[in-house]
Amino acid sequence: MLVVPLIERKRDGGALTPEEWSALIAAYSAGRVPDYQMAALLMAVFLRGLERQELAAVTDAMLASGERLSFRGWDTPRVDKHSTGGVGDKVSLVLAPLVAACGVAVPMMSGRGLGHTGGTLDKLEAIPGFRTALSLAEAAAQVRKLGVAMFGQTPEIAPADRRLYALRDVTGTVEAIPLIAASIMSKKLAEDLTALVLDVKRGSGAFLPQLEQSLALARTMIALGEDRGCPTVALLTAMDRPLGRACGNALETEEAILALRGEGPADLMEVTYALGAEMLLAAGVEQTSTKARRRLERALGSGLAAEKFEQLVAAQGGNAAVVEDPSLLPQAAAVEVYAAPRTGVVQRVEPKTIGRAVVAMGGGRQRLDDPIDPTVGFVITAKPGDKVLAGEPLASVFARDPAGIKLGFDALARAIVIGDRLAEKPLPLVSHRVTAAGVEELARA
Amino acid sequence: MLVVPLIERKRDGGALTPEEWSALIAAYSAGRVPDYQMAALLMAVFLRGLERQELAAVTDAMLASGERLSFRGWDTPRVDKHSTGGVGDKVSLVLAPLVAACGVAVPMMSGRGLGHTGGTLDKLEAIPGFRTALSLAEAAAQVRKLGVAMFGQTPEIAPADRRLYALRDVTGTVEAIPLIAASIMSKKLAEDLTALVLDVKRGSGAFLPQLEQSLALARTMIALGEDRGCPTVALLTAMDRPLGRACGNALETEEAILALRGEGPADLMEVTYALGAEMLLAAGVEQTSTKARRRLERALGSGLAAEKFEQLVAAQGGNAAVVEDPSLLPQAAAVEVYAAPRTGVVQRVEPKTIGRAVVAMGGGRQRLDDPIDPTVGFVITAKPGDKVLAGEPLASVFARDPAGIKLGFDALARAIVIGDRLAEKPLPLVSHRVTAAGVEELARA
Repeated sequence: MLVVPLIERKRDGGALTPEEWSALIAAYSAGRVPDYQMAALLMAVFLRGLERQELAAVTDAMLASGERLSFRGWDTPRVDKHSTGGVGDKVSLVLAPLVAACGVAVPMMSGRGLGHTGGTLDKLEAIPGFRTALSLAEAAAQVRKLGVAMFGQTPEIAPADRRLYALRDVTGTVEAIPLIAASIMSKKLAEDLTALVLDVKRGSGAFLPQLEQSLALARTMIALGEDRGCPTVALLTAMDRPLGRACGNALETEEAILALRGEGPADLMEVTYALGAEMLLAAGVEQTSTKARRRLERALGSGLAAEKFEQLVAAQGGNAAVVEDPSLLPQAAAVEVYAAPRTGVVQRVEPKTIGRAVVAMGGGRQRLDDPIDPTVGFVITAKPGDKVLAGEPLASVFARDPAGIKLGFDALARAIVIGDRLAEKPLPLVSHRVTAAGVEELARA
Repeated sequence: MLVVPLIERKRDGGALTPEEWSALIAAYSAGRVPDYQMAALLMAVFLRGLERQELAAVTDAMLASGERLSFRGWDTPRVDKHSTGGVGDKVSLVLAPLVAACGVAVPMMSGRGLGHTGGTLDKLEAIPGFRTALSLAEAAAQVRKLGVAMFGQTPEIAPADRRLYALRDVTGTVEAIPLIAASIMSKKLAEDLTALVLDVKRGSGAFLPQLEQSLALARTMIALGEDRGCPTVALLTAMDRPLGRACGNALETEEAILALRGEGPADLMEVTYALGAEMLLAAGVEQTSTKARRRLERALGSGLAAEKFEQLVAAQGGNAAVVEDPSLLPQAAAVEVYAAPRTGVVQRVEPKTIGRAVVAMGGGRQRLDDPIDPTVGFVITAKPGDKVLAGEPLASVFARDPAGIKLGFDALARAIVIGDRLAEKPLPLVSHRVTAAGVEELARA
């Protein structure tokens, strides 16, 4: 296939036909187009964009490169949630069993941490024995039986996306909205969903920090979903500070378990309920937000959601006793309390600094095959706007050794900014709701 | 070395430092940066450009990747000419011996045909025995002895450029002005020149057809040359029709020999004298264009230039008898005359169509290692503006077989457009003179 004329056309601002995209991605997957040609094309796409038809063709081609889940003949509505990633974002661990406990099936395919953001698979694997590498057949069978499965992108799903993502990662072409949207949607559309709910993060710790970028990404993914028969809705949520208190794999899993038992921090619960309500509405099991939220609260308060998580852990080979006793999760060797260096008002808790520190302490990856230590991280109780006194505890650092504690302290000293007064209001936790019909502003900073 | 942050910076419109460019190109040459990263960076450079300092650093790094000619301790001025490439452009074969015959040394490093444009090395190699693969030491020794050598880019010269050029060719990043300029100048600056004269083609058959692009390329190369102590001047010349009559390797060599014997077509001579005069002025051997031109005419009329070419051919292993008897050049198996299909005025002779036909007939390459047939091509006597009668001969086709003749006829039927009157005036043969001081318009269309 003649690739250079296609690269030149995109470079000069033109569009490739759906047939050209389809043939190109199939040839790339089959190893018949070299990485250097795809790298040049990806950069041209980064700088020139993709038209709506092109984007659909790219997504379809990646989807077509692999297998899909199938729930043929099964009436239960199926809804997944996807988050663009953040720091302390353990929503999936609470949300998937919670929504499943409300009668909506959740076939949740998740990712690993990369860069400063964490990944659901890494958090789940902090549970001794928990197996995320389900085959597609295993995942489908478990969803039919339990109503929920949480698993990784299998090699059968969208292998072209896997290869393209790896190339983007090393060629400076990750943060392109159409490429991000196609990558996410090619995987989500393989789940045979009734509907999809997106959690698009905004703020300094988000993948795309600016509101306009977050809205553009949401709109692009919604268009892709709707065009392919998967109603899609997005909430824009705050990632200008960590979500909840825990940051680090086992610590976040513990916080998620506490949340399922009714002891979750308010911000985590607010985001979880907001996304859960959208999932119940999209599934058609409730007709109003208020009713949906009440149903979620009941499923949580009654212990049904925690029970569902217990079943999920057991079904995937994990030690389900962690739900009763989170101290069974791996524990850090060293713990120290970080105290406020001065009296004042917490102005910022910078999520990127925290996320990077978790990686540096051994809790995340620099490269995809790095091993990780699930025990390290932070529990940060200080939130922007809090008045604090010098010497008051703001956070705990969990590390492998004194060197890790020092890394953690240094990061906290940079991340937690204390001033005389709050200079800038934090972002509203849930600020916008985006649907095919348009954007609704829910709260203003 | 961390390449992704450099790619991202260029992608976002920033600049790399000279040190970063230098380290990057050295690492790429050494195989420590993969092609896919360089491909992404090249596309970012294509779409974002290079600042003047960056361009200088890229050129210097490519220059530093290899060896250079050295004429240390030798007083004779040395001037080379570089053309951006065209169809029927055999100027180098006439110009190099002609200027050398006027006492200015010409160390001329040339290229091969690629795409629709021909290459000086291929034309010279049509002479039985002619060897263009001189080592740097051989080339330098011959220039000192004869005043002229015509040879290919040796593996020792700018190897980084060689590798980058090959990558640009397969990644749709060839036509970027800064990359073209850096590639050309990294080789020319390796020649240890007193000055450099550029022939920048414009018009439909040029690499960069638009006047603005040609001017930008000229200015960029001049800045690079001047900054590095090599005074550089450019003439913009017409490539909206083939130059001279012959197109095809042996046919062009024959036309060049005829030109050296005083029988060259007027357009070829005008461009040759214009460039030659610039070379004599730049070398400082003449002070005015008029005097320079007279000196060139005398060197040609006296037979000195033809004699110099004879010496050159002999020194490089070729059969010097071709200068006396061009029929010793390889001859095509089939020749047929193409006649005007109608009465009218020749409106266009499209050089790209002609150049591509020479390639299709076996006289050029689709890939760098394709063998070529020196005998095939065209001699086209029709020029834009000529009044012709139906049935009048316009051109001869030289081919290997009847299939080649048919290819040639088809190409001529498309390339030579005959209408009722001249719709558009042809470009002036030599339209602009560009120096570090600015642009001078010499003739208007």
